[in-house]
Parts: sequence; structure tokens; C-alpha cells
Amino acid sequence: MGNSMYTAATSQSLMKQLSRSSASRIILLVMDGIGGLPHPDTGRTELETARTPNLDALAAGGVCGLADPVGPGITPGSAPGHTALFGYDPLTAEIGRGVLEAVGIDFDLQASDVAARGNFCTVDENGLVTDRRAGRISTEQCTELSSLLDGMTFEDTEVIVRPVREHRFVVVFRGKDLVPDVTESDPQQVRVAPVPVRAVSPEAEKMAATARRFIERAAEILAGQHHANMVLLRGFSSRPRMESLTDICRLKPAAVASYPMYRGLARLVGMDVLQTGSTVEEEFETVAERYSDYDFFFVHVKGTDSAGEDGDFDRKVRTIEGVDAALPVLLDLRPEVIVVTGDHSTPAVLKAHSWHPVPVLLSSPWCRPDGAAEFSESACVLGGLGRFPATQIMPLAMAHALKLSKFGA
Amino acid sequence: MGNSMYTAATSQSLMKQLSRSSASRIILLVMDGIGGLPHPDTGRTELETARTPNLDALAAGGVCGLADPVGPGITPGSAPGHTALFGYDPLTAEIGRGVLEAVGIDFDLQASDVAARGNFCTVDENGLVTDRRAGRISTEQCTELSSLLDGMTFEDTEVIVRPVREHRFVVVFRGKDLVPDVTESDPQQVRVAPVPVRAVSPEAEKMAATARRFIERAAEILAGQHHANMVLLRGFSSRPRMESLTDICRLKPAAVASYPMYRGLARLVGMDVLQTGSTVEEEFETVAERYSDYDFFFVHVKGTDSAGEDGDFDRKVRTIEGVDAALPVLLDLRPEVIVVTGDHSTPAVLKAHSWHPVPVLLSSPWCRPDGAAEFSESACVLGGLGRFPATQIMPLAMAHALKLSKFGA
Repeated sequence: MGNSMYTAATSQSLMKQLSRSSASRIILLVMDGIGGLPHPDTGRTELETARTPNLDALAAGGVCGLADPVGPGITPGSAPGHTALFGYDPLTAEIGRGVLEAVGIDFDLQASDVAARGNFCTVDENGLVTDRRAGRISTEQCTELSSLLDGMTFEDTEVIVRPVREHRFVVVFRGKDLVPDVTESDPQQVRVAPVPVRAVSPEAEKMAATARRFIERAAEILAGQHHANMVLLRGFSSRPRMESLTDICRLKPAAVASYPMYRGLARLVGMDVLQTGSTVEEEFETVAERYSDYDFFFVHVKGTDSAGEDGDFDRKVRTIEGVDAALPVLLDLRPEVIVVTGDHSTPAVLKAHSWHPVPVLLSSPWCRPDGAAEFSESACVLGGLGRFPATQIMPLAMAHALKLSKFGA
Repeated sequence: MGNSMYTAATSQSLMKQLSRSSASRIILLVMDGIGGLPHPDTGRTELETARTPNLDALAAGGVCGLADPVGPGITPGSAPGHTALFGYDPLTAEIGRGVLEAVGIDFDLQASDVAARGNFCTVDENGLVTDRRAGRISTEQCTELSSLLDGMTFEDTEVIVRPVREHRFVVVFRGKDLVPDVTESDPQQVRVAPVPVRAVSPEAEKMAATARRFIERAAEILAGQHHANMVLLRGFSSRPRMESLTDICRLKPAAVASYPMYRGLARLVGMDVLQTGSTVEEEFETVAERYSDYDFFFVHVKGTDSAGEDGDFDRKVRTIEGVDAALPVLLDLRPEVIVVTGDHSTPAVLKAHSWHPVPVLLSSPWCRPDGAAEFSESACVLGGLGRFPATQIMPLAMAHALKLSKFGA
């Protein structure tokens, strides 16, 4: 049952009114795709299979629950999964694919830029797509081709092209009055021609015309290349207008993430992005080293999701056990609040993100412990947080850090 | 989790459509600040520590849950806590500080009145505030000073001044076209001058000018007084426009509360306020005496909150035990529905209101009992009501009293 109309925007507006800066610290540890499904042989999920004495002790003394990032039955992508965790309505704070790719390579996207995700692809002599990913060319080849396309200008509009990975690149259109309300050129299938980019609203005519000119010019330049001879664009988008966590919660927030997309998402809500290594241990050490500089740490662990996507149940179990083993580095800092959760579920048996609600564990001297004596999906069903929208994790963390004053007399 | 868009207003509108007057009776017993946190030595909350055979039997045969008065993580003041319990959205039915003080001394506030909370204070020879509370003068001194300021008139506007307690008083402006949309004169700090009251909207110019003239005249009158020589005003407000419980639920409701603020809140939603004593036993006897005159009783117990605010775990436990011991007086009336809950949590270890969800117990011949075999926070986690907004307590009570007919064919 729900606090009706009690939206993420409501709680953000209350936090804006009630939050106060204080010395207490919050660590939000996100194990990407943590939620799972039972292994057919054992009936236990990845989290239930993993030996996690530290997480279990934290759950026993803390309060647990199950969160829906978007809503029951809805499988979240990484972007809505994280915006919900940061307290923003994932439906209104929609982040376009182009923006996501741009911020994911640490590109400094400006407010008026329009970004699109690009694929290098191959087309036949009739212009029909033969491979949407050009045989997943190497990142080196992508870098070389991107540099050929980078730096065009069409009237006042500059076009910036940056490689991402394999066949993927980002194109950023920087000019006046560019509106991202245009269709995609990627037909999402082979044996058809790329689709001309069209404006969906009259204000987007300039953007559509510029994109068409860029694609036309790119086709001419790539004609002589044998790895890829065409581009497909999708996800035209501009930076969403999101107030920063500092404006909403008076926090000084930092992000510790080894994957660029999560650094990018953190940057969109105003976090400082810290230099860190690629292992969980290095990430946790980064938190310890910079502990005095910030009062909020978003720590992102990618391995759980990667293993889930690969359908590798055992590797997901081992990744969780690795996080548990490294956890004392964070616990020794004695943060006033530590939240352990995920941005969505990625059950290994599904080899994909899923809609299943995400286990949440909140530990604080001021939480009201419940019957959940271990950190697992089945224990979280009985937790005191109940089943709740993931957007409420931030207000709960803020409250337990004693950073919210009373509402009303 | 919620049925979004299913707001307090939605259920009130449904109740307005579906409710029918009947002989069945509802008792809403509010133990103020009932929710707690574990004692560090025992791991048990106040409610879990208290010996409460009657409440436990009621819980075993009833249905339990945990309610959020405002939303997860939000600590409610007494006013939003109670408006939610009465079924009103605590965010839209916000009650100004001036109104709260006025209704809290049983002042009969009229719809067009503007009320402000006043402090008697001291200022130095330069007019700078030296003590915002005038050394917390006695209530007797406050009464004396209030009478000096009472009864001014400025054109058509009458100014009524009533003492509250210590340095606090209420000033009510009664005249035509007074709009409370004005700034406060209280600078909220010392060594600065009181702030001239200003209109925030053009319609409030008359109110602002009248407030300035009152403050000017008050300063002249108080100049010769040595306890306090100035006033500070804040929380200018008018009665919120709230439909009565009678209009919404077709109830004939009565309030039994020994503290004036709760009588005032009850009066705002149209309850009759009954004469009662100051003990729990006297309050319960009042319900018994007037049982045939009403079909809804709001019974308010203050002691639980006071003990929590004082950090007195044991006194909160004893207060709960006292309520439990007196409970047979209410149970012997055999009300069709009795709800036992609080307006918020006040854990003794926090010495303050808190954001933790509030235990709710609903007993009725028509409830579907759950696994909760005692009235405690941990049992309520497993209760059949789940975790839900406190604004849904009224429709649940109405339903269990068979006072709501079917919605739709």
C-alpha cells in the first residue's frame, strides 16, 4: 500500500526543506544487479549461496527491505536504476542513451549539447545494413574511424565524435537551438537502409537537418574504409535538468566507481568523481583515503552485474563474497549510515537485468532492527523497511544520519 | 509501496461517497510518540519491554502494521502526525504555528482570523534583541503582560492577545480582508533588531501594516516593563480549510484529550471536545460516560511522548503499562473498532520525535487476524496491514465498522 502521490519529487522537496549539513557520513554501496533467483539445483539465490558473514552481521543489526527501482514488474536499465537510488524519479529524470554514452566516457557535456550514440556499421552496395556493429570492430579501429569524423562544422554547429568501445561511439552536436526531439537513424535490423533522421517537433528541424548532413558526410568519408562504411545514430538527447544532491540534501557527495557509465551518472547529480582502481579493494581504499573530504560516498561494484549478465552464477557468488571480505575497510570507518543494495536484479539464470525487487540493508546506530538476520532476498521479505520504492532510500539514509529536521510543528 | 495517485484525498473522496451513518462505534486511541527504539542493554523497545497483556491479546485477535505519518524518513511534528491519523494529507493540510498555538489554548479561532505565535523578549537601548524568550518569564508574568497588549483596535481590526505558557502568547487579528501571507518579525537570533513584518503578496498589505502597528504600540506599552520590553511574532496563519469528519465520514466525533494542542487539532476537523481529567483513567472514563452520544472517539495519551522526549525509557514503559491496565474500561464498551497507534515515534534513546514507522493495531470482529501475537514494533513488521501511510487508518477503521458501502457495481 502506498503513500499515494508521495512521489520521489515530494520527498526531494521535503529533503530540500528539512536537510541540514552535519558531520555524519553516509555510504551507499551499490552491488550492481545484486538481486537474484534461485539456482535450480539448490533453491538458493546468488546472495543466499554466498558466504557473507559481514553482510549478515550488518543485516542482523540493521533494517532490511525490498525496493522497486521503477515499479513492480518493470526491469530497470542502469540509468533509471541509479537515478532512483539517488532519490530522483526515474520516470521524469529519464537520461537519453546519447547522454549516457557521453557522460560514460567522462565527456564534459554542456547543457545545450545534443548527444547521440553511434554504431559503426556496414552497408552493401545498395545501402542496406549488413552488420549493425561492423563485426564488433576493435576499440582501436573505432578510435581511428572516430577521428576521421571528428570536427565537422555545419553553419554554427560543431560536431564532436568520440570513440567509446568496439563499434560504439558518441557524437555531440554543439550549436545554437538544437533540440533533441528527432527520430533515430538506426533501423534496429539488417537488410534495410538506415532511416533518415526526422524532426518530431518543429523546433527540432535544425537538429534533424544537421544530423542528416553529418550522416551523409560520414558515409562519404567512410566509403573507402573496409572495417565499417556507415554510421547508425540513436538516442538523441540532452542533459536532463536535475538538481544536484548538494542542492537537495546539502551533501558533499563523492562517487567511487571503476566503470565510466556510473561515474557519468554520479556526475549528472553533482557528485565529485574520485580517481580509483578497478578492484573492489581499491574502491574501498579510495573511500578510506578520502573519508574526511566528503559526507556521502556512492560506491559502485560492477562485477555482480557482469557475472549475472554472463549467466555465471558461481562468479556472481564469488564476487559477492569478495565484497563481503573487503567490507571491513568500510565498516572500520564507522559511517553513521551504510546502505547496501543494488540498482536492479540481474539473476544469473536469466542472464539479464530483471524486474525482481532489490534487497536493501540499512545499518545505523538509529535504525530499528527487524527479524532479518542475514542479507538475502528471503530475509529482506521480512524486513522492517517492507517493500518500498527505491527512491525512498535517500530520505531513509538522510534520516538515519540525523540530517533531516522535523516536518511541521 | 503504493497504489500511486491513491492519495489521502482519494480515500477521503471515496469515504465521502460511500460512508453511511450507523450505530457502530470507533475508538482511535493515540499513544503519542508510541514507536520506539531498542534499549541498548536489552535490545527491546519501550513497547516490547512493557508488560501489556490487554494490548497483546488485542493484537493477537486483530490486525497489525506499521504506518508512515508523512513518508519514509520524514519526522513528523504533532500537527502533521495527527492530521494524517484523522485521514487528511499532512502535506496539504499544513497547520500554521499561529493557528496551532491558538487552537492549543482552546481559543475559538474564526475562519477569517489571522493568528501568530508571539514571544515576549528583551531588547537593548539600540533595539537589538538580547533574549528571544525574555529569560523564559513565568506564565503569570506572561498573563500580566498579555493583558496589557490585549484589546487594541486598528481601524476595523481587533487585536486579541492571550497568554500561552512562559514567554509564549498568541495574537489574533480579527478584521476584514486579513491575509496571513506576511513575513515574521522574529529574527531567530540575538544581537539584531526585530524584522519589520512585510507583505509577501499584495493582498497581505493590510495584515502587514496592522502587524507593524501592533508591534510598535506593544513596544511603547512594554517600554516600562522590566521582565520583557518587546514582542517577536511568527507563524502568521489562518485556519486551514479542512472538511469536517462529519462531512467526510458522516461521523459524530468526539475528542478526549487532556492537552490543549490535541483538543485544538481535533476541533479543526470538527470534533466535539469533551471535558475530561488529566489521567488516562479519567480520559477512558469520559469515553464510557459519553459513549451513547458519539460514534467516534479520539482518545489522546500524552505521557508516552513526554517520557520519550525526556529520554526516560522506564517512564515511557510505565506509561504504556498504565494504558494497558486501564484498557478494560474501553474494551468493556465493546466498540466495533478500536485502533491503537501513535502520531509518530518518540524513541527515548533519541529524546525526540523520529521518522520510524508507527505500530498500528486494529481490532474488530471483522478484521482478518495475522501472525502478530503481541503489540510491538517487531510483531507489527509481520502484520497483515503491512507498511502503509497513516492516512489510510481512517478508511480502514470505517470499513471495519461496516460504515462504508461498496464502490462500483
